[in-house]
Amino acid sequence: MSLKLNTKYLKDFVNEDEIAGIKAQVEAAAQSLHSKNGLGNDFLGWVELPTAYDKEEFARIKAAAERIKANSDILIVIGIGGSYLGARAAIELLKSPLYNNIKKDTPDIYYVGNSINPAYLNEIISLCDGKDFSVNVISKSGTTTEPALAFRIFKKMVEDKYGKEEAKNRIFATTDKARGTLKNLSDAEGYETFVIPDDVGGRFSVLTAVGLLPIAVAGCDIDALMKGAAKAQADFEADFDNNDCYKYAALRNILYRKGKSVEMLVSYDPSFVMMSEWYKQLFGESEGKDNKGIFPSAAVFSTDLHSMGQYIQDGARILFETVVDIKKPKTDLFLEPDAENLDGLNFLTNQNMSVVNRKAFEGTVLAHTEGGVPNIILELDDTTEENVGYMIYFFEKACAISGYVLGVNPFNQPGVESYKSNMFALLGKPGYEGAKAALEAKLG
Amino acid sequence: MSLKLNTKYLKDFVNEDEIAGIKAQVEAAAQSLHSKNGLGNDFLGWVELPTAYDKEEFARIKAAAERIKANSDILIVIGIGGSYLGARAAIELLKSPLYNNIKKDTPDIYYVGNSINPAYLNEIISLCDGKDFSVNVISKSGTTTEPALAFRIFKKMVEDKYGKEEAKNRIFATTDKARGTLKNLSDAEGYETFVIPDDVGGRFSVLTAVGLLPIAVAGCDIDALMKGAAKAQADFEADFDNNDCYKYAALRNILYRKGKSVEMLVSYDPSFVMMSEWYKQLFGESEGKDNKGIFPSAAVFSTDLHSMGQYIQDGARILFETVVDIKKPKTDLFLEPDAENLDGLNFLTNQNMSVVNRKAFEGTVLAHTEGGVPNIILELDDTTEENVGYMIYFFEKACAISGYVLGVNPFNQPGVESYKSNMFALLGKPGYEGAKAALEAKLG
Repeated sequence: MSLKLNTKYLKDFVNEDEIAGIKAQVEAAAQSLHSKNGLGNDFLGWVELPTAYDKEEFARIKAAAERIKANSDILIVIGIGGSYLGARAAIELLKSPLYNNIKKDTPDIYYVGNSINPAYLNEIISLCDGKDFSVNVISKSGTTTEPALAFRIFKKMVEDKYGKEEAKNRIFATTDKARGTLKNLSDAEGYETFVIPDDVGGRFSVLTAVGLLPIAVAGCDIDALMKGAAKAQADFEADFDNNDCYKYAALRNILYRKGKSVEMLVSYDPSFVMMSEWYKQLFGESEGKDNKGIFPSAAVFSTDLHSMGQYIQDGARILFETVVDIKKPKTDLFLEPDAENLDGLNFLTNQNMSVVNRKAFEGTVLAHTEGGVPNIILELDDTTEENVGYMIYFFEKACAISGYVLGVNPFNQPGVESYKSNMFALLGKPGYEGAKAALEAKLG
Repeated sequence: MSLKLNTKYLKDFVNEDEIAGIKAQVEAAAQSLHSKNGLGNDFLGWVELPTAYDKEEFARIKAAAERIKANSDILIVIGIGGSYLGARAAIELLKSPLYNNIKKDTPDIYYVGNSINPAYLNEIISLCDGKDFSVNVISKSGTTTEPALAFRIFKKMVEDKYGKEEAKNRIFATTDKARGTLKNLSDAEGYETFVIPDDVGGRFSVLTAVGLLPIAVAGCDIDALMKGAAKAQADFEADFDNNDCYKYAALRNILYRKGKSVEMLVSYDPSFVMMSEWYKQLFGESEGKDNKGIFPSAAVFSTDLHSMGQYIQDGARILFETVVDIKKPKTDLFLEPDAENLDGLNFLTNQNMSVVNRKAFEGTVLAHTEGGVPNIILELDDTTEENVGYMIYFFEKACAISGYVLGVNPFNQPGVESYKSNMFALLGKPGYEGAKAALEAKLG
């Protein structure tokens, strides 16, 4: 079990002095993180979570998942941002990007409450028609517009179909441990609740009940996921010279300071798409502040070599790539030679398709570095639960360290409030009346 | 039917002199495009395609689509880059991002040959088990690695299940009109073929058979799609002052020249995700060359306001947004008030959900422009076929003009070859032996 940093393809872009020059900054960042005296130190619950998690609640999560698997064709996950991205990312990477289409003995999972688009919501509602379903609503407060609106609708659907009493067996709330609208409502209605810890922000919450309940319903081994994260927690306490997590944080900052303003997270596996979305929130929301921060983007190769490949190879030189090099695919496919060979592809055959995918990776990393794009390689053995848990923790800690080195508070997100307060004022939310007229004047 | 440029939210970012200053450059670009004397003028077939398309072939496309709809549960579309993105983008926008999950009377559609990942391909193969399926293979040459490998596999699957004779009714090739591996094989096997015109590049090909056959199989009205594109062809021949397409091309270049190196294409509709991927190829591959070009990215709001929103509001000021403001959703949902109002959301109710989504848009555009992010608004009435066809042509022409103003050849993609030749050498493809040893030495 491991994730290893490979810096072989950085030698034309980052020199030894640069590493030496930033090392003390990374060590200072790690010191701040571990002594809990840095910016945002109220939100460091994720650091020791893989070993310090609530074992009683963990057992309840597994039990709830078993009940949902037994009585539901569909699980509706209601949440936005960190309240759905981590679960969806893990499920698609561990199982399949086609999770809802493939044959399986676990419920379909649909994600709502992450949008205000009515057509999309109507479609998911229709999909529940004639099916047995349960709901996991995930919200710290219970008043965030998108999930709260969706929960109103699905709560009523459950009650209309099953009645108030059975709703207690089909609605699960992941929310604040003690207070807030959703916690109060859940206690009043008798729903089972799970905890979003006070000291774990949304984008760092995938290894809490926020992520774990949906992931367990999908049939993934959450014990192994936590075991992998716990191994990472131990491994990435090492000193800088033996710490690939710290080195990755260092390298991103070195590249950013020399004008590489966009990071592209790359994999060669379509099941990584949502994990990249999780990464975009993790790093974008942690570092994108104070008019600073690397812009996070993502691609799946070789697919996107035929869309974004031209830009990467030869466009503006503002990019670096971080490639998650997954050594072993979930399944392989032996390529048989064809007697006629009309398409001239026999040179690819008599071997597993994964070998061809690996040569695509090797050819691409050489082409892109030759084109002036630094490539950081993160080698991951496979996408089993242990390794995915390990990788999740790697990125979380790298993000925290990287943000401290950048000089920001990696754990707040003040900019997310701006659109919300405008929207509330325009919608006439009580308490926001004052701003309404001025905003409407700007809209003209 | 229209797509209208709204520049109201640019007034703090672009002044009248800047528009006046670039106008002559845009007019020169339009002149080059229409007189066919600019860079890449061998690839201008898309300009008059909406009116000059082959009507006989168009009728054959519709007839083939009807046969596929009648005899198939699944259509397998084999293609990479422009050979699948346009079709998938149009189908998800016109029908649903959950097209394969919703109830419908048209075949499921799966896209293969756009990756070398074996696990993903194995899953799609399994999905065909026990189902009736047809195949549309899309490749100009027939030798591009990804689709050619997938076609070998699915050709054999069709023949094994249905026999050689019935395969003629289930395999459709969209390829060169006269030559190439796929054309030759199709003629020899008796497959019906459709044409990828010589003068239409992959990323401009969605309104040829490349896109039209899958789009028609999904039950979309391709007559209306072409009608919308034809209207756009006429409308966007107007002079600069009356041409929103030219003005959009001008604005992106103005913003790029003042340091806005990333464009984010935004919508408030989850069905726009793949259309944004199509846009990323269109603009990224057309402009990302000669160490220049705006980096194309995308987001769906309000979903991604809870992941990328912080960066947009407050991160590095290298971004501008282009928002496709779809006025009317496919369906709406009336929000009933709740007597108890425990979540305090009654202020949102007694109105359609689309009204709330619109206030989210208005609140966000004010917040982001206040935060220093220029917002270009493209107002689209709805996502019917006519308007989607109109929008597709708008983006194609804007991209061509924008590329000429940037000073590049918008119609080539020399950088895409670099990874391919490396990969071929590493795989031992005949003719590439010379480079192999040197590349392997670099890999170490």
